[in-house]
Amino acid sequence: MQTPSKVLDNAVEQLSSLPGIGKRSALRLALNLLQRNEQEIHDFANAIIDLKLNVFNCTECGNISDHSTCDICLNPNRSSELICVVEDIRDIIAVESTGAFKGKYHVLGGVISPMDGIGPNELNIQPLIDKVSSGQVSEVIFALSPTMEGDTTNFYLFKKLKDFSSIFTTLSRGVTVGAELHYADEMSLGRSITQRQKYDQE
Amino acid sequence: MQTPSKVLDNAVEQLSSLPGIGKRSALRLALNLLQRNEQEIHDFANAIIDLKLNVFNCTECGNISDHSTCDICLNPNRSSELICVVEDIRDIIAVESTGAFKGKYHVLGGVISPMDGIGPNELNIQPLIDKVSSGQVSEVIFALSPTMEGDTTNFYLFKKLKDFSSIFTTLSRGVTVGAELHYADEMSLGRSITQRQKYDQE
Repeated sequence: MQTPSKVLDNAVEQLSSLPGIGKRSALRLALNLLQRNEQEIHDFANAIIDLKLNVFNCTECGNISDHSTCDICLNPNRSSELICVVEDIRDIIAVESTGAFKGKYHVLGGVISPMDGIGPNELNIQPLIDKVSSGQVSEVIFALSPTMEGDTTNFYLFKKLKDFSSIFTTLSRGVTVGAELHYADEMSLGRSITQRQKYDQE
Repeated sequence: MQTPSKVLDNAVEQLSSLPGIGKRSALRLALNLLQRNEQEIHDFANAIIDLKLNVFNCTECGNISDHSTCDICLNPNRSSELICVVEDIRDIIAVESTGAFKGKYHVLGGVISPMDGIGPNELNIQPLIDKVSSGQVSEVIFALSPTMEGDTTNFYLFKKLKDFSSIFTTLSRGVTVGAELHYADEMSLGRSITQRQKYDQE
């Protein structure tokens, strides 16, 4: 697909480099940008450039932050004894939005996936081992996606960490809150029966 | 949704201002951009800024161009007597990709759509009337989308232009090339029967 303008072609090329954006969608986005005024375009472009200049990875946990240490690691009300291991920062956002977790995080940067060429060495695992081996971590929550790759990574981490004096937990798996039971998939429903919990009025 | 970084929040905000991009997709795009190196980010941002600085609307037809007149209007091999009226530049790209048209274009910038507050005054109609009233246009092809709004616009343009000595045509409507007949919708199939054409061995 070629447009009547090389400059537009270039913008389409760049926009279609984003995940999930094909050439046609990219053209639609570029034409939308084309209709904006100069200020709006500069705000847009600067927001992108700022990503590179002013976003850092937290040296403690691998979360992203506007500073060298993230707000969660700096927060004195959050326990360093409880570490939630996640795949990437989207998972931190998801867990934070529940308000159910008061510990700190550790971002792996992915999961073990031999098909994609991602082994343990490609992941941010050693700093987690260092933290847990210090003996100051009472519980490690493996909060990885409930997929084959996530399970493999859980198993690998457990093997590396099990000799240190921590409790290791994973997210509970079962039926989705708010969905009708007969729509639940067999694996989740099966798990929710074998791992059934004592009825609690709360 | 809030991310751990105000800079990232801002990038997500800007990216989600694009059509069809929600907050979650915008976060995915921003995290992808975050992983690129400085050069790549600058290339990306500059491609966007360039849209505003170096893309112009052709003063003749409303097409976009890297110059004040587009390549199609400048091309001496394309007939000025034949004008194809389209909604926006995506339609020019679509028609050009067929290689079936050797005239010039006129971009309306939209179609009449009272529901969206778009009347004839919001569209680039007067320059088309000027062109046709000059008497140098032998045929005007209405190549608008086969929708209610497109048909309304066709009718409006026809009323405005019919007194000038041109032929007025629209795109033929009928069954899609390459699709099985029983999948054709009733309207298209009906049209293709009433507007059936003499069998031509070519």
